Amino acid sequence: MSIRVGIAGLGTVGGGVVKLLLEHAALQSERAGQSIGIAAVSALEMPDELSPLLAGAVWHGDALEMARSPDVDVVVELIGGEEGVARKVVETALGAGKSVVTANKALIAHHGNELARMAEKNSASLLFEAAVAGGIPILKSMREGLAANRLDSVYGILNGTCNYILTEMEQTGRGFSEVLIEAQSLGYAEANPETDIDGIDSAHKLTILASVAFGCSASFGAVFVDGIRNISALDIEFARELGYRIKLLGIARRGEHGIEHRVHPCMVSIDTPIARVSGVLNAVVVEGDYVGRTVFEGAGAGERPTASAVVGDLIDLARGHGAPPFAVPVGKLVVQPVVSMDARVGAYYVRLIVRDQPGVLAEAARVFAEEGVSIESVLQRGRDPGSTVPLILTTHDTEEVAMMRVRDRLANLTAVVEDPALIRIESL
Amino acid sequence: MSIRVGIAGLGTVGGGVVKLLLEHAALQSERAGQSIGIAAVSALEMPDELSPLLAGAVWHGDALEMARSPDVDVVVELIGGEEGVARKVVETALGAGKSVVTANKALIAHHGNELARMAEKNSASLLFEAAVAGGIPILKSMREGLAANRLDSVYGILNGTCNYILTEMEQTGRGFSEVLIEAQSLGYAEANPETDIDGIDSAHKLTILASVAFGCSASFGAVFVDGIRNISALDIEFARELGYRIKLLGIARRGEHGIEHRVHPCMVSIDTPIARVSGVLNAVVVEGDYVGRTVFEGAGAGERPTASAVVGDLIDLARGHGAPPFAVPVGKLVVQPVVSMDARVGAYYVRLIVRDQPGVLAEAARVFAEEGVSIESVLQRGRDPGSTVPLILTTHDTEEVAMMRVRDRLANLTAVVEDPALIRIESL
Repeated sequence: MSIRVGIAGLGTVGGGVVKLLLEHAALQSERAGQSIGIAAVSALEMPDELSPLLAGAVWHGDALEMARSPDVDVVVELIGGEEGVARKVVETALGAGKSVVTANKALIAHHGNELARMAEKNSASLLFEAAVAGGIPILKSMREGLAANRLDSVYGILNGTCNYILTEMEQTGRGFSEVLIEAQSLGYAEANPETDIDGIDSAHKLTILASVAFGCSASFGAVFVDGIRNISALDIEFARELGYRIKLLGIARRGEHGIEHRVHPCMVSIDTPIARVSGVLNAVVVEGDYVGRTVFEGAGAGERPTASAVVGDLIDLARGHGAPPFAVPVGKLVVQPVVSMDARVGAYYVRLIVRDQPGVLAEAARVFAEEGVSIESVLQRGRDPGSTVPLILTTHDTEEVAMMRVRDRLANLTAVVEDPALIRIESL
Repeated sequence: MSIRVGIAGLGTVGGGVVKLLLEHAALQSERAGQSIGIAAVSALEMPDELSPLLAGAVWHGDALEMARSPDVDVVVELIGGEEGVARKVVETALGAGKSVVTANKALIAHHGNELARMAEKNSASLLFEAAVAGGIPILKSMREGLAANRLDSVYGILNGTCNYILTEMEQTGRGFSEVLIEAQSLGYAEANPETDIDGIDSAHKLTILASVAFGCSASFGAVFVDGIRNISALDIEFARELGYRIKLLGIARRGEHGIEHRVHPCMVSIDTPIARVSGVLNAVVVEGDYVGRTVFEGAGAGERPTASAVVGDLIDLARGHGAPPFAVPVGKLVVQPVVSMDARVGAYYVRLIVRDQPGVLAEAARVFAEEGVSIESVLQRGRDPGSTVPLILTTHDTEEVAMMRVRDRLANLTAVVEDPALIRIESL
């Protein structure tokens, strides 16, 4: 017995999958109960290093043709992008009753539920462990290992690029732009880094996590998203002084009024496990009503960890495992009301750049008071009369909507010379 | 469709399983694709609180009779113990072609491979996620999620009782016996705590982890085991001073010469993720050649987390998932040579209690030198001429066998008044 795999896309991850399937073919076939062979590949061009490894595979210039080929049982989609060829390849394969493994988070975040429905209708499987948190088997853990629980929340560090940048900023005191350029030169950030640093990538992953955890329809559009571009070295420094670290988190929670899901920079206590996850690592925390809190940590991206997840899915297919992609059949997925960001309740950090003159704090404090927001602490570091200095305030728990009014009014104070910076403090 | 479960054993975990199956019946049946019903139970007596919940289940005074009953499809064994009724129930069920879910680490560590063979022969499944690290889906993650990798090591904090005791000792400065008594009164340690504090429980779990990770026959007898009885408040204090924490770890590694597996107190750098796992939590680190290092953390014991793992296994059965219990078919499990503890290479912490007189350090240092063991640091705190004081030495990497010679010779020095305490330093 043998599963004949067709791989669409031979970039970094595709190359890793090819190498992993060949390097551990014997071990994988013992574990899977049958061998997993590369029957076909499709890509714009064949990378030189892969060419000798793929001598036995059929080359398809057209990925759709490969997806339709009767000599391919399972299609691995590693092209990327939420539309275009990637989507067509997956739809073509599922339509032909072939199972699909993909690492494509954008595709699943946008079209996962429809694709799962196509898979069900055609008795095919759709697996995408590699789409979230790289090599960490977080989707399998939630869908299967923790399946007995009602899951109440899932959150974590879902983007290694942002975590690398924030860690470097903290450790070196340098600014965002400088660290981003270095991350690009080291290959930790892409030439077009927007998807990562603006939080889109994290939001894709959070959408998938929430759908699997809560059995709700994926709704990428409903995720509140804010990235890390505006985090300054000053904020990192003050965070430390206050006992926090700044992390870009994706947070999904199920509450009385619906689902809350949001991606934004957070201040988290340095005592939490999530605060200690540094560099390009990812970490995901899952809370279930019986299991309690479980934490999963590991490499969230890269050729080899991502290949580990893709081939793990192939082994599942070879073993005949077929849990529904989103833990329950598509017909059972519910549309959950989404709790508006305005309703978030929590503490806030506000950094103002103000003219160093008497009365500024009193003016600012009056704004907080009038909006009913209670101040927890104030930090004024450095005196420079006549010039500008930072003024830091943190609040007790308050509603986001009140805090937005505070921010807008602070921005209009004459002593305030820059847009106020606001970072949410999360007690996790 | 429905799976009819028979539960043998209605202690803490059994009660949790009953409650979880009833509380989330609807959700679990959506996820599993069929309902999971409690058809029968067997226990010495029916706990009062469960009686009303189990009105629809058949009561069997004899667990073996239940295991043979034609009205039971799957047997959940929660009796415990490596022999006796527990073993007979499992063998009877498997022999009758019924799948078995168990939380019994001793049984699996001692007889797992034979039982897996019985399961295979009778086309039944044998699942035991709850046997290791409570609610953390670590076996599933290694057997399935990371199945594409060659796994090279697995280690961690596998016993919550010991971790609680060590954490309390560190945080309060109290001695082992005092904290143990408190742990017993709080229900964190059993009345007969030997299995936990002497490392047996960790060794059971490590045996299972190693077998799944490396595809080798389980060999509990080959695990080197040392517990935490002899850890003193003094050692905890010096560990902190040296930048370490003391943890009871189970460590399994695959090397050139075979498998190394051992359970003993370790000093680990406070900067490692494992050092920060406190209280009753468990944490397991898995290293694979593609995925890199992944860390899994959560509740390692208790009614609800353990029930989460047991019912997770039942959902797997209901879904028809059937990976081999030890990741590969029993016929493919290999007998790996076991690397002797004497061959361990690493650093060591040695605490001597010596008469405070001139020349003691010189004498001790000569012993190290003559055995070819290089000293990394020396700490002498407190002076009390004529009385006794602690003398702490740490070494550079050396072989265990040389270190044992050093210890024996140090014990014979006239200035040394107590058996030397020796703790292995692990760089993880």
